[in-house]
Amino acid sequence: MAARKKKRSLAQPRRVPGRRPGRANSRGVIVDAARARFARDGYEATTIRGVASDAGVDPSLVMQFFGSKEGLFVSMIEQTTAMSDSVFAVLAGPRSGMGRRLTMAYLKLWEDPVSGDKLRSLFRAAAGSPRASRMFQGSIEKTLMRSDLPAAMRLPFLLAVSHLLGTAIGRYIFELPVLANPSLNELVSLISPAIDGYLGTTSPVPTRRTRSR
Amino acid sequence: MAARKKKRSLAQPRRVPGRRPGRANSRGVIVDAARARFARDGYEATTIRGVASDAGVDPSLVMQFFGSKEGLFVSMIEQTTAMSDSVFAVLAGPRSGMGRRLTMAYLKLWEDPVSGDKLRSLFRAAAGSPRASRMFQGSIEKTLMRSDLPAAMRLPFLLAVSHLLGTAIGRYIFELPVLANPSLNELVSLISPAIDGYLGTTSPVPTRRTRSR
Repeated sequence: MAARKKKRSLAQPRRVPGRRPGRANSRGVIVDAARARFARDGYEATTIRGVASDAGVDPSLVMQFFGSKEGLFVSMIEQTTAMSDSVFAVLAGPRSGMGRRLTMAYLKLWEDPVSGDKLRSLFRAAAGSPRASRMFQGSIEKTLMRSDLPAAMRLPFLLAVSHLLGTAIGRYIFELPVLANPSLNELVSLISPAIDGYLGTTSPVPTRRTRSR
Repeated sequence: MAARKKKRSLAQPRRVPGRRPGRANSRGVIVDAARARFARDGYEATTIRGVASDAGVDPSLVMQFFGSKEGLFVSMIEQTTAMSDSVFAVLAGPRSGMGRRLTMAYLKLWEDPVSGDKLRSLFRAAAGSPRASRMFQGSIEKTLMRSDLPAAMRLPFLLAVSHLLGTAIGRYIFELPVLANPSLNELVSLISPAIDGYLGTTSPVPTRRTRSR
């Protein structure tokens, strides 16, 4: 990602009234515009020019930040998969009730209006085109490698997460009433035994005396 | 679906050498062409004209058969979801080992080169656009309603199927090596206890004396 040299100082961008101020903010505005375009038009039909127009910046600035449409897409994936930290954090906690906490942490990301919108956009774009699927694959692989997950736990963990992904797709992408109508708590209670099964962890016995968050 | 009046008799289409013969065959050729276009370009970017050109027929014939792009997409969904008969058939069988048979029946549809290609194409197109997702939702609802599934079993059954869908997406759409490398049998053995959990059915104890297909 070679940044082109600019005459104007990058540290002191000229403020245009009504325009977005600052480089860091421009970057965020561009990624947000890209996310919306990728979700609506798909990876293949999205253009740098269209994203720049939506973000209110010059296409050359998009190129300067991200290098290419592929670079822009990968940045969007990485910003979104960074949200998975809350899911990995569960794996470092106590084993009792881990299935419930993992299920809750994962589905909460989809349930929240802000992170849920990002996940839906990413998923639609990543699944919609084989090229986008490959970039998504690469990012998941990197995330797995960076995690502390022992090699022997990778398959059980991905079976658990793929279960949660499939349920999230049914509830938040296809919005099937049978999966979309139950409360989040109800769904988590039904799913967590399967997740505990994969993790080899245990569900606390659900009695009135047990803390059941 | 108002079919436009044609001067030439539909019962006796003029055969053009090298062209596909017969109406029934034309219909299939058009659906196949549509599937490829929807998967490659997405629902929004696909046009009747493009599909007709790929199928080697006149756009008016596509309109006459399917009425609209939406009608064409719904026909493609219905042709593909008809493959789920093998999955529903498992529910009518013996309860012992049902999780294993359901998991195998479902994943075999994705594993088979012909039906797998159809499922990948449908899934990419259905997930890639909110409008396409809604049509897919409608078709799944109809399939559920037509099935003999008792109302109380719909949520557990959809949790089981959404698990299998998520795993299929990881293995066949994103091709994550951790999920794509194991053999189908290995995967089915790991997943079926979770599916039995949802169905309230039992896995036969895996001893040498037990029949373990």
